Amino acid sequence: MKLYPEQFQQAIETIASLPGIGKKGAEKLALALYSWPESKLKHFASLIDSMQHDLHNCAQCGFFSQKDALCPICSDPKRLNHQICVVEQVSQLPVIEKSGSFKGLYHVLHGKLSPMSGIGPDDINIDSLLQRCKENHVSEVILATSTDIEGQATASFIAKLLNEHGINTTRIAQGIPIGADLNYADAASIAMAINSRREL
Amino acid sequence: MKLYPEQFQQAIETIASLPGIGKKGAEKLALALYSWPESKLKHFASLIDSMQHDLHNCAQCGFFSQKDALCPICSDPKRLNHQICVVEQVSQLPVIEKSGSFKGLYHVLHGKLSPMSGIGPDDINIDSLLQRCKENHVSEVILATSTDIEGQATASFIAKLLNEHGINTTRIAQGIPIGADLNYADAASIAMAINSRREL
Repeated sequence: MKLYPEQFQQAIETIASLPGIGKKGAEKLALALYSWPESKLKHFASLIDSMQHDLHNCAQCGFFSQKDALCPICSDPKRLNHQICVVEQVSQLPVIEKSGSFKGLYHVLHGKLSPMSGIGPDDINIDSLLQRCKENHVSEVILATSTDIEGQATASFIAKLLNEHGINTTRIAQGIPIGADLNYADAASIAMAINSRREL
Repeated sequence: MKLYPEQFQQAIETIASLPGIGKKGAEKLALALYSWPESKLKHFASLIDSMQHDLHNCAQCGFFSQKDALCPICSDPKRLNHQICVVEQVSQLPVIEKSGSFKGLYHVLHGKLSPMSGIGPDDINIDSLLQRCKENHVSEVILATSTDIEGQATASFIAKLLNEHGINTTRIAQGIPIGADLNYADAASIAMAINSRREL
């Protein structure tokens, strides 16, 4: 027997497609939404509805910005503009930013190279990176694309292209995460950690 | 420095007000929503927007139902109609239903008695419970309101009222949850478990 009406069931299933939320958690969240005051629920719906439309992208780096403005990072005069950190998507920028370990500017790609899905170098905003580097005398581009095969290929492709233009590139270090138990590390990470070992 | 534009920050904070979701989780979910295909995001927004409006309540028990229809439970002829289980709100019915331990009908209150907030017996749908009991010769009303002070008071109030009309009431058992470690049980639950002990 189906306990919930069709639309409510749909809401549960949509919520369950969010990362880290299971069927049971989605049901709990849908019921919580249902119990919200109407005004709060409607406001939330409108925030979601206009989320992609209202958010603009910084003309320089591609991160979120207010309309026709640079993002807070690009417009901050204290940032080091000779360093650019390249990430695959908007959601990865805050992760690096919050680590507090990078004071330069960013460049947000439109994803990563994926020949199988027909996504080539012209599709992911690489040209404008090259242009920024040339115009601003960038001394180092840090490639922080993901560590899967496509992310690695994207990093290699950009490194080769920039090096040809005399721009220095580095790749974020890969290995065993801080605080991780070696017992549970995967073989690829261990291999990378050993191959990239350095003197103490 | 504020990393996100105002509306996006609002979306994060609204999501963080859902139960069991922290600030960091809310940020992750908002970014995930942002990356959804536009059609999926818009559909989700409309599901949320119309959630309270589209959902109707069963005229008999108060659970979710299709418009002008009884809910799936009340319209199931196999359910035992001489037993009614009383819950405080719609979200508590599925919890009991999924345990598979109850085959009767339900009655959903509109919350619980709360004199401090001005919520009295007339506000929480108790009258219609009494009426249902009288009309359908109900033999037992199981009070499954919550175990906090207001839930207990609500159960006591309903028990007294129904008993005056000769209707038998029971209260769901309270004590140590199945599988729980006694070391971590709170004093009130242990006291209740000891006071409500039974012979094996």
